[in-house]
Amino acid sequence: MPIFSKEVRLASRPQGEPTLDQFAFATVELPDPQPGEVLVRNLYISVDPYMRGRMNDAKSYVPPFEIGKAMTGSAIGRVLQSNDPAVAEGALVSSFYGWREGFVAPAKDVQPIDPKDAPVSAFLGVLGMTGLTAWGGLFKIAALQNGETVFVSGGAGAVGGVACQLAKLHGCKVIASAGSAEKLAFLRDELKVDYAFDYRDGEPLAHLQKAAPEGIHVYFDNTGGPQLEAALSSLRPHGRIALCGAISGYNHPQPGPRNLPMAIGKRLRLEGFIVSDFVGDLAEFHKEAIPALLGGKLLHSETIVEGIDNAPAAFLSLLRSGDTHIGKLLVRVGE
Amino acid sequence: MPIFSKEVRLASRPQGEPTLDQFAFATVELPDPQPGEVLVRNLYISVDPYMRGRMNDAKSYVPPFEIGKAMTGSAIGRVLQSNDPAVAEGALVSSFYGWREGFVAPAKDVQPIDPKDAPVSAFLGVLGMTGLTAWGGLFKIAALQNGETVFVSGGAGAVGGVACQLAKLHGCKVIASAGSAEKLAFLRDELKVDYAFDYRDGEPLAHLQKAAPEGIHVYFDNTGGPQLEAALSSLRPHGRIALCGAISGYNHPQPGPRNLPMAIGKRLRLEGFIVSDFVGDLAEFHKEAIPALLGGKLLHSETIVEGIDNAPAAFLSLLRSGDTHIGKLLVRVGE
Repeated sequence: MPIFSKEVRLASRPQGEPTLDQFAFATVELPDPQPGEVLVRNLYISVDPYMRGRMNDAKSYVPPFEIGKAMTGSAIGRVLQSNDPAVAEGALVSSFYGWREGFVAPAKDVQPIDPKDAPVSAFLGVLGMTGLTAWGGLFKIAALQNGETVFVSGGAGAVGGVACQLAKLHGCKVIASAGSAEKLAFLRDELKVDYAFDYRDGEPLAHLQKAAPEGIHVYFDNTGGPQLEAALSSLRPHGRIALCGAISGYNHPQPGPRNLPMAIGKRLRLEGFIVSDFVGDLAEFHKEAIPALLGGKLLHSETIVEGIDNAPAAFLSLLRSGDTHIGKLLVRVGE
Repeated sequence: MPIFSKEVRLASRPQGEPTLDQFAFATVELPDPQPGEVLVRNLYISVDPYMRGRMNDAKSYVPPFEIGKAMTGSAIGRVLQSNDPAVAEGALVSSFYGWREGFVAPAKDVQPIDPKDAPVSAFLGVLGMTGLTAWGGLFKIAALQNGETVFVSGGAGAVGGVACQLAKLHGCKVIASAGSAEKLAFLRDELKVDYAFDYRDGEPLAHLQKAAPEGIHVYFDNTGGPQLEAALSSLRPHGRIALCGAISGYNHPQPGPRNLPMAIGKRLRLEGFIVSDFVGDLAEFHKEAIPALLGGKLLHSETIVEGIDNAPAAFLSLLRSGDTHIGKLLVRVGE
């Protein structure tokens, strides 16, 4: 009995803001898994801002998407057929075979997950690469200390939301920005940040000065652009910036921060990072995050879009200023 | 017998490029040193690019110069009168009482230097704060490793010249920029750097790509501006930038580096520093630098301007693109 999988392919590379024309759908028949292989039905696929960079033909830390081929990314699925003794049929697994309904791959390319630990979709969000990104940036890169003041741009996004919560769990004062009233309410009411502001409401620096008159210790940067410039001005001596994302410039290049020379006198440290550097620390992160999640101290916030047909539009919306998605954005592609 | 000292005072704060009108001269009679004080005749005073920032009324790591008062900075002098048993008359001392011919100050404000170690003026240059800045930036901030490739902007300047030499002594490949043919010849013939280029000759990135096709490991930034942007593009994964100065923007603010988001995927670290953070490491630095200097492996390059009357003009020239001074710029104010 043949099994078919619909997949999303890159049709062309965008100039500036991508459109739906850059994506194409195709349906492929999945082969039988050979020895050492598994056949997986995806349940959820992840769409993330960093994928915008992969649409360009530029060498980067993740290879670019290839035109005419299925795109890739994080996914959670269930093993329908296994031809490898290490992976049981019926097991839940995470993989990098996103943007498709199903796939056949070597068993070593899938990682079993334990549904007792959390809702399945959390393994793409707060317990997955998203949460690990927030944790690695705050603690491994910015060396955030208990009680410090931290500013998180894009605080209602997937990574930002976890960063805000982890910082609060460490007794920090948290300032967060977002781009809609709903997101600001979420930051204040659900994530309990100390000060939330709309990054388009006046000067970001004025908000930082109001929220932290003595300055901030750490900036978790998801946006780049004017918020990075404001953070450089606000940071206290020996402040740290975890450079995680620069979404403000993904579609339309932004000017650089004019006040970067302030980093000299204030002895600031800016450091970029990518989550794959911390994959070896996943167990350490889970040791903190799973009890917090099960104890209700760490929220798993997600927005779920139904059906692979809607994946490209969901992804494009993430990149737009004023996007209304809160938390991790997932696409459900199977049951 | 009264002793008079001519001093340079800040007359007004500049907008953009300062002029001689911003400085005023005054002659003051020095009082007799009280118990615990010394009277010092300055021999050399240091004029440094960072002093441009002190002409602004802005809070920074060094307090701004005060209008109507003598300016300050590094100086080497001889003790003419001592009213403190810890400091002998005739001793050579370094202090922060620059921009004047002499002064009376608490004995604790002056540090004896040993003329057996090096020419006196070297204590304002290669063995002084200048050399310590280069050493701290390269090794404490950028963690330069033997054999790596390093780019030093402003390589023929006081700090840059020491940075180039220290890196060569550690077996590194050194790329350096400067703004005149004389400086480029100095970099090639005296400092023996591997590749020297004029930062106004085409795109800095093209030079870096030619000199280091595989990219650089470390950038020692004295300039900011387009050279910082080029370095961000050239840096290899896990590259480091020591943010030491931003002379390109001291008089005329520069746009920020548009490609700072490259720091994310390449996991770059940018870190600002000031020399006073390393004052406790001076002995460690001297342990390396004094034998190298005495052994002829570390050149003490300086340009000496005669007379305190010429100090403002010498300082202003340092800030200009295409300045022709090589090495440390000193003003001789006494014998």
